Amino acid sequence: MPFRRSVATVCLSGTLEDKLVAAARAGFDGIEVFEPDLIASPWRPRELAARCADLGLGIELYQPFRDLDSTDPAGFARNLRRADRKFDVMAELGVPTVLVCSSVSDDAVADLDQLAEQLATVAGRAGERGLRIAYEALAWGRHVSTWDRSWAAVARADHPALGLCLDSFHVLSRGGDPAGFADVPAEKLFFLQLADAPHLQMDVLQWSRHHRLFPGQGAFDLPGFLRCVLDAGYAGPLSLEVFNDVFRQSDPARTAVDAIRSLLWLEEQLPGPAAVPAAPELTGHSFVELGVDGVSGPQVARALHGLGFAHTGQHRSKPVQLWEQGRARVLLNASVVRPAAAGIAAVTALGLESSDPAASAARAEALHAPVLPRDRGTAEAQLSAIEAPDGTQVFFTRTDPGGWPADFLPTDEAARADAGLIGIDHVGLTQPFDAFDEAGLFYRAVLGLAPQTVTEFAAPFGLVRSRAVAGPGRAVRLALSVSALRRGGWSPAVPDPQYVAFATDDIVTTAGRLQAAGAPLLPVPANYVDDLAARLEPAPELLAAIREHGLMYDEDEHGGYLHLTTLVLGDRVFFEVVQRLGGYDGYGNADAPVRMAAHRQARAVQGD
Amino acid sequence: MPFRRSVATVCLSGTLEDKLVAAARAGFDGIEVFEPDLIASPWRPRELAARCADLGLGIELYQPFRDLDSTDPAGFARNLRRADRKFDVMAELGVPTVLVCSSVSDDAVADLDQLAEQLATVAGRAGERGLRIAYEALAWGRHVSTWDRSWAAVARADHPALGLCLDSFHVLSRGGDPAGFADVPAEKLFFLQLADAPHLQMDVLQWSRHHRLFPGQGAFDLPGFLRCVLDAGYAGPLSLEVFNDVFRQSDPARTAVDAIRSLLWLEEQLPGPAAVPAAPELTGHSFVELGVDGVSGPQVARALHGLGFAHTGQHRSKPVQLWEQGRARVLLNASVVRPAAAGIAAVTALGLESSDPAASAARAEALHAPVLPRDRGTAEAQLSAIEAPDGTQVFFTRTDPGGWPADFLPTDEAARADAGLIGIDHVGLTQPFDAFDEAGLFYRAVLGLAPQTVTEFAAPFGLVRSRAVAGPGRAVRLALSVSALRRGGWSPAVPDPQYVAFATDDIVTTAGRLQAAGAPLLPVPANYVDDLAARLEPAPELLAAIREHGLMYDEDEHGGYLHLTTLVLGDRVFFEVVQRLGGYDGYGNADAPVRMAAHRQARAVQGD
Repeated sequence: MPFRRSVATVCLSGTLEDKLVAAARAGFDGIEVFEPDLIASPWRPRELAARCADLGLGIELYQPFRDLDSTDPAGFARNLRRADRKFDVMAELGVPTVLVCSSVSDDAVADLDQLAEQLATVAGRAGERGLRIAYEALAWGRHVSTWDRSWAAVARADHPALGLCLDSFHVLSRGGDPAGFADVPAEKLFFLQLADAPHLQMDVLQWSRHHRLFPGQGAFDLPGFLRCVLDAGYAGPLSLEVFNDVFRQSDPARTAVDAIRSLLWLEEQLPGPAAVPAAPELTGHSFVELGVDGVSGPQVARALHGLGFAHTGQHRSKPVQLWEQGRARVLLNASVVRPAAAGIAAVTALGLESSDPAASAARAEALHAPVLPRDRGTAEAQLSAIEAPDGTQVFFTRTDPGGWPADFLPTDEAARADAGLIGIDHVGLTQPFDAFDEAGLFYRAVLGLAPQTVTEFAAPFGLVRSRAVAGPGRAVRLALSVSALRRGGWSPAVPDPQYVAFATDDIVTTAGRLQAAGAPLLPVPANYVDDLAARLEPAPELLAAIREHGLMYDEDEHGGYLHLTTLVLGDRVFFEVVQRLGGYDGYGNADAPVRMAAHRQARAVQGD
Repeated sequence: MPFRRSVATVCLSGTLEDKLVAAARAGFDGIEVFEPDLIASPWRPRELAARCADLGLGIELYQPFRDLDSTDPAGFARNLRRADRKFDVMAELGVPTVLVCSSVSDDAVADLDQLAEQLATVAGRAGERGLRIAYEALAWGRHVSTWDRSWAAVARADHPALGLCLDSFHVLSRGGDPAGFADVPAEKLFFLQLADAPHLQMDVLQWSRHHRLFPGQGAFDLPGFLRCVLDAGYAGPLSLEVFNDVFRQSDPARTAVDAIRSLLWLEEQLPGPAAVPAAPELTGHSFVELGVDGVSGPQVARALHGLGFAHTGQHRSKPVQLWEQGRARVLLNASVVRPAAAGIAAVTALGLESSDPAASAARAEALHAPVLPRDRGTAEAQLSAIEAPDGTQVFFTRTDPGGWPADFLPTDEAARADAGLIGIDHVGLTQPFDAFDEAGLFYRAVLGLAPQTVTEFAAPFGLVRSRAVAGPGRAVRLALSVSALRRGGWSPAVPDPQYVAFATDDIVTTAGRLQAAGAPLLPVPANYVDDLAARLEPAPELLAAIREHGLMYDEDEHGGYLHLTTLVLGDRVFFEVVQRLGGYDGYGNADAPVRMAAHRQARAVQGD
């Protein structure tokens, strides 16, 4: 294993005991001890060291020591005494390195010579005890807020027990250039902390405290950063220091898995052999499975008939129906226990077409995705399946005569394309609140899908955050969404159903056939169309079609998006029909608030 | 009634129907129709107008019309056509005024003459139809981002159907000076939108979208702003335009009450007679009532004995015990149904000493606080009580022989002061997630308590936000706290108990007596004391006392704070003993994470 992988205890929620167990179980080699975690712990430092040894965790860093330097000699003397006490703790812990971050205090030293002298003094005391100081520029430090400045101070101090700690957040949030690391001697690169973040325009301290993310979850170029650090000769652990409002209160076992996955993904971006098998290309949606019961099953089946689908197959051994239209396939599975409440229908599985299903599954397992056992009958194809963070099962498939369709015995109904649906455009999945960023990384790292921009929109019952992930050529698209805040008790309707969006080349014809077939279509408010007419001035025939068929319409800089929606079925799911015009690459989010209000209105009319 | 009170529909969660009902029930006179709410509604404009008329709500403003002006003549022509369509909607709604906000578009007009000409053109079209344009500078507008600039454009356009909309957020977030309103002719002040906000350093658009607050909940000088607007001759409605991530998903009925309360409070800050009775001074904590049951009652009683309290009284008609020590009084009420789960103890009521209890209650009622019915026995004092947003009952009391103590028959135990506790220092109340800002305004407006700064700290199971409210001379102090994010499923212990903090003048003596009496004290980790010694270097005798008695210690710029804590009792409550040194004005928040981890550890030891 080329790298030691480490995580700061501050990344994980809970008490120190919770954190250690989570880090060890996820496979980390070591931890940074975040001092407040130790202070709040009943374990004395020696007990913590013993516990870490039991769990196979090295203690890589003690952090942070704040506000060391001072223009007031008495103040600096106090700070040295304080450092001596922390060196005592470090000796008991057996940790060689302490992170000293640049001062934010009013009495911080501005003069580089004086700062270097004070750093050399404390390094001298550390060195006498076999310890060393990794000096880090906080992005909001009073006089040292860039890595260049921290390196200037360390270089001038010129003490063997003094080196740099590089933190990707502090460097990249200030627009620092990692290419400059090449000028730092390798033996001065004492420690490396990795964090990603979204681009935000806000006070950098608040940005850091509330919005850090694991590598691959944000907008920073972490692969480029890491390459620069390694090229400069850094040979220490890759250590994550990431915290945000969500991670601070999430299950640390999940967060730790998310964390190690982010490091595996990051390492894979480096040149050379990777620790995990490469991601085979995903070439399309093979099916979506809905879990149904005796109440919701017939309701969904009627809707599929209305949408022009045919019930073409029955599973050999399970109560699963196959419905088809073009390359759009829906499985209705009455044996899935997850939707426990009566009358519920929910997306329970995605079939994704893989160029090498076994390799897809092997990669997923290497990236700590839960691999699902499959109970197979004799005549059934082997299906590799994993579980996504939201509980959805993901099957890696090959749709050919010897593949998964062979599990289904044909019915009397022949596949047809009554309504002109040609395949699955995308699937919309609502995410558990705590798992939004985890899900983004999961689909990116495990499946090799590319994340699209995060957008937010004001829905009737609260802000919604949305991010899509898509495969090459957009053959696979998933639209993930989550409430911007975890919902509370007030909400008059289930506001966030999942959906399956089917593609058509001619939504006007499709809509006419759906109306004729009695599909359960969602009425679109007339006010919406009036506004659309005023706002986008669509061509008269397009506007007429929108009015006549209850369509919605969105535009981006590349093209347009015509779509229509069914009522909510089985309390949790609806179907959408979409036609992309030109290069439109979105998901109709601008129309989502109207759709949500209309769904609520329709439920009210139904007496729900 | 001197002012028309209005609220923008965007302030309230839900669909338009939910919003109208909430606004009408809270007593608003009118609304601003936020266009997206209308677009998503099944009501055509005439139906909305009829619905508002039924509910007694005027429609004061239609908003917003975005990106009107354009350097591209064809673009401006399109925007004029769009405006005409919106004038059609306004005519059906019967609303006279539309808010036009400054453009954020790339083709926005920079030249003031051209902008004035385009504004005059659209005002001309509006004027022909009896409508008018209220032009507002968005704080992030492309070329018009300050109110001065918006006024310059309106003045230059010089059209009777064109005036200003002043929004306190847009003016104050940019540091605008409301004193300048005096130079604007009164007839040009078409509309006023009010919003408060915390001081934040971030992109102003994001600040506005996610962090607006009702007047009195933030840091802006809304009273000063409003005085300037009124002095300039504005005679229209006071209208709230406030949205943030929490309000967007909270019960609109609660939000609407919060909103009207903020306006009543704001109006009271103006010179002249107020619409609500003044707040009598609150001079102290008379008691705290804990709801207990057969399991938790004896546990709490044992703890009170250990803390030196005596069970001095028994209620004449209810299963309520009075416990006393000095002026610290605790009621244990076994008849309160709220803590339904077995073994629970919880703070159910606060007794606050009022110079005029009836007037306190009358003010609370005028400010829409729920007034509680009291079932009284013949010999019992009249007690006025209201309900706070977290469900805690607040009693306005006078503690004299004829007052509430007369409801209690003396027991054999005499009051004593075994442990030196002299009164209640403060009560710590955890707030429902959605009600934190509502609670701050409630205590400020209804009780006349002054809000202290909001602080955040990283607790073991997530970020906690805390704000205290305090009365004159700090005779009444309440420490309110809430999770920065609503908690999810993961949390290994009840992380947020309430507490009652008793004051002592000599915590060392008190602690010795508590230990001798076997009070259920929380052990403080040795690591905490080691860090304290290194960090603050307390005097040797103080440090020795801290070690010996398991104290915690905090400092601010005014003084020090020694405190100790009991175990959690009845699953939800603990007691604290505090000694303030010098002018320390905080609540030991710096120590709270250690206390929380220690509470969790103690519960684990107890096998909880």
